[in-house]
Amino acid sequence: MCDASQVVLGLDFGTESVRALLVDVSGNELGSAVVPFAHGQIVDRLPNCDRSLPPAYALQHPSDWIEAAAKATVLAIRSAKIEANAIVGIGVDFTSCTMLPTKADGTPLCLLSDFADEPLAWPKLWKHHGAQKQTDRINEVARARNESFLNRYGGAIGLEWFFPKMLETLECAPKVYQAADVWLEAGDWFVWQLVGGRAISLPRSTCQAGYKGMWNATDGYPSEAYLKAVNPKFASVVKDKMPGQLIPPGKTAGGLVPAMAKRFGLREGTSVSAAIIDAHAGVPGAGASAPGTLVMVMGTSSCHMLNSTKERNVPGVAGVVKDGILPGFYGYETGQAAVGDAFDWLRKMTGAVNLKQLSAEAAGIAPGSDGVLCVDWFNGCRTPLMDGKLRGAFAGLALHHRPAHLYRSLLEASALGLRWIIELLREGGVPVNKFIATGGLPHHNPLVVQVYADVLGESIMVHPSKHGPALGAAILGALASGVFSSPAAAIRAMSVPKPGTAELYKPNRKSRKVYNNLYADYRKLGDHLKSHR
Amino acid sequence: MCDASQVVLGLDFGTESVRALLVDVSGNELGSAVVPFAHGQIVDRLPNCDRSLPPAYALQHPSDWIEAAAKATVLAIRSAKIEANAIVGIGVDFTSCTMLPTKADGTPLCLLSDFADEPLAWPKLWKHHGAQKQTDRINEVARARNESFLNRYGGAIGLEWFFPKMLETLECAPKVYQAADVWLEAGDWFVWQLVGGRAISLPRSTCQAGYKGMWNATDGYPSEAYLKAVNPKFASVVKDKMPGQLIPPGKTAGGLVPAMAKRFGLREGTSVSAAIIDAHAGVPGAGASAPGTLVMVMGTSSCHMLNSTKERNVPGVAGVVKDGILPGFYGYETGQAAVGDAFDWLRKMTGAVNLKQLSAEAAGIAPGSDGVLCVDWFNGCRTPLMDGKLRGAFAGLALHHRPAHLYRSLLEASALGLRWIIELLREGGVPVNKFIATGGLPHHNPLVVQVYADVLGESIMVHPSKHGPALGAAILGALASGVFSSPAAAIRAMSVPKPGTAELYKPNRKSRKVYNNLYADYRKLGDHLKSHR
Repeated sequence: MCDASQVVLGLDFGTESVRALLVDVSGNELGSAVVPFAHGQIVDRLPNCDRSLPPAYALQHPSDWIEAAAKATVLAIRSAKIEANAIVGIGVDFTSCTMLPTKADGTPLCLLSDFADEPLAWPKLWKHHGAQKQTDRINEVARARNESFLNRYGGAIGLEWFFPKMLETLECAPKVYQAADVWLEAGDWFVWQLVGGRAISLPRSTCQAGYKGMWNATDGYPSEAYLKAVNPKFASVVKDKMPGQLIPPGKTAGGLVPAMAKRFGLREGTSVSAAIIDAHAGVPGAGASAPGTLVMVMGTSSCHMLNSTKERNVPGVAGVVKDGILPGFYGYETGQAAVGDAFDWLRKMTGAVNLKQLSAEAAGIAPGSDGVLCVDWFNGCRTPLMDGKLRGAFAGLALHHRPAHLYRSLLEASALGLRWIIELLREGGVPVNKFIATGGLPHHNPLVVQVYADVLGESIMVHPSKHGPALGAAILGALASGVFSSPAAAIRAMSVPKPGTAELYKPNRKSRKVYNNLYADYRKLGDHLKSHR
Repeated sequence: MCDASQVVLGLDFGTESVRALLVDVSGNELGSAVVPFAHGQIVDRLPNCDRSLPPAYALQHPSDWIEAAAKATVLAIRSAKIEANAIVGIGVDFTSCTMLPTKADGTPLCLLSDFADEPLAWPKLWKHHGAQKQTDRINEVARARNESFLNRYGGAIGLEWFFPKMLETLECAPKVYQAADVWLEAGDWFVWQLVGGRAISLPRSTCQAGYKGMWNATDGYPSEAYLKAVNPKFASVVKDKMPGQLIPPGKTAGGLVPAMAKRFGLREGTSVSAAIIDAHAGVPGAGASAPGTLVMVMGTSSCHMLNSTKERNVPGVAGVVKDGILPGFYGYETGQAAVGDAFDWLRKMTGAVNLKQLSAEAAGIAPGSDGVLCVDWFNGCRTPLMDGKLRGAFAGLALHHRPAHLYRSLLEASALGLRWIIELLREGGVPVNKFIATGGLPHHNPLVVQVYADVLGESIMVHPSKHGPALGAAILGALASGVFSSPAAAIRAMSVPKPGTAELYKPNRKSRKVYNNLYADYRKLGDHLKSHR
């Protein structure tokens, strides 16, 4: 059915860098390279410009994406020692909603001299939080009009999503908004650059559109009447500024154009899959093709993804999108806004040299952290409260507590936050029966996985790949190239762990009662923080 | 009226050391010395004995007090370059309730070979927390019987007080309790050693008895009927184990006996005042002779002392004692359990090198600490909740916060805690109209004083003496020796700051609204912590 000498390329775009991973169609990882973005996150001031940015801003440079991805691909091919001709497909996962305005030919507005010094002409990174006012209005109007899309998003549109970010520019930098012919996700823009074409046929991923663009296959995008009620000038934004063709991840968006083939050192015409959101790529990357498996993509923040045969609108669950992750299932997205980020913040806050030292001490503290209770909303609460303005807390503090007590309570808080999410899904009628952890965090922080297993009372498998999303992207590249007959077949061949390669963390049931009480306290303190923010 | 060549000695007993201060009767500080206690705080194991102590224990060695005080006095006389004959009076302030059991001749039980290895035969330091069970019962029975003394103590007897500590020994080490002829405060014991005499005439300070011994001039100590209800064997403890004569601070307890005169290098017969609690000595030491002046004695913990012409039972105020601080006034004691202690804890928690660095950064953060809210109960809440088991918290935390945000919010929390105390006093009908800060903290941490002034909306004077309690003790020594006709005269002459010597911190009223909102949030978070501890 497939030839193991066939190789696919997964490009995994993170917040600071891109990874290129080469995998053969039996799932052997042949080579890999990470290249940081030259401008990283743009949060202080614009490139080549003294204009400083407000604190809520987080931007990126579009040229970084192409340059870093090309360099990483060349390095990965070199490290894999393969011929570029062996590469039959390319998959792309990208942070989302990272988005930008372009001209009709795809040129980012920020690269035009007229707009180079206008912050809102630059790509907005997923974590850009400039659209609070707009988000509030988008939600108010939707609630007032009882828009049905709200149910698919747990009752609230997020501050980081596509329409709020567009509306921010319309209202705060109207000239930029007017000059833009196209607004699109960065992942779609990147794929568009690879496959060429014109604006009218630009590929838009159903994944990004479904989870961040308020789109679904039945209803399409929000109606003109709704958008007009939000802002009259916003009424025809979909028709005017969002051209393109919706394509599911794993379906081909086109073949590699000559200029890009040369730049990346790849064969012209190589199939390129429609993009997928980075966390969502973690699902095929973690070997999860069956419904009911929660894939925890754990990094600076965490996304917990689930395929299900059930369509249920669960209050607080950020998105349920048909075929959003894998064809044939309802894909659920939930998330926690600060995980590895929060651990690292606490490390800096306590002046600890590294997390290993804190972890070693924290492992010696009994469940419950000697009375210290944390609520992990240091970057807001994503699921289920969908409120970026919420903040975190530590309670139960006494003079004998040390940094390791704070750290352990933070790990416990993160696990308690996930417990809440799982209870919501189950209570909402969505079965969750298997747990796979992937992403960078589980590999270098075994304590957090054990605390999760103990707090959830569930076994957790850590997927052996250290590049789960990149592997998932590669699988989509293989699907786009037609190597496999179905996603399930591709996942079985490429990412279900070989026997003995995955670590399993079993729950210690002795701490069950402590964690049950702690969960009640966590929810109560959370309620207080929510009602007094 | 007085001869400025007359000198008085103030002995200020702290937790780790004793200070001897020599002052002339015009208030000029002539010399001073600090000598640490050889055994410090005994918290791990008993001296010359392998027996290790439970975590709640904190003991002291009675010989340390005499030896360190004698050495400090000799050193202070040397540094002052005066003749010992010039010293006309001695005042003593002491931590409280630090207390011990002795034989009828004053010999501490712990110095007898039969009891040297019994922890509860040793002096218990004020912070010894072994009597939780006993304290709970003492309060339950008092509430059930509606004992009137409860009203004088804000509704609750403290874990650190005299009767709980006696009862702990009765119930946990009955042989020690039986062998004790006398139980008394360490300050009283020290004065008794200086002036000699027999058990029946041993001097007991009305200050210690009033604030820590549930005594007042009208009702005396708690009744036999009440004590019997607490524990039948405790019924006659006052009659059997608490002989002595109650004397107010500033009145003479007697003259120095020859052996002690020799040991201290002082004149035989020198007048010795009855003892006073260390924080309470801060009131005369701070130049506060008028009613309505709050003297904030700020150190590892803080005591806020106030004289008033009004007798009001204010819920949560730890003690109101007639003549408890100065004759002629009702003395109010309130306190905060963790102040400098908490600052230092946070310094260690954040790995900061010193508080100066944190202070410099915190001073640059606007009032409200960018949304970080702290409740300062890291060692429980003294006034007004009188609950040592309460714990502290930080809320409103986000990933961009740094140690200086925590630190500033901690300073603000400390100030908000004091604001609560002042509101309680005023609402209870006790006027508070002037604010003097003394103790070690205000001199080396100007930021905390400014934050207090801003949060309270009141000017705060920092008293120039760096040895406020020792100066207060010296004033009591002068009163005992008969140099002055009244406490007010002594204070006017010796501790009211000379013009231009005291620093005044004026409130910045711009932050009034921020702090009003913050106070409401502080109270709400406190309510949550209280109801969910």
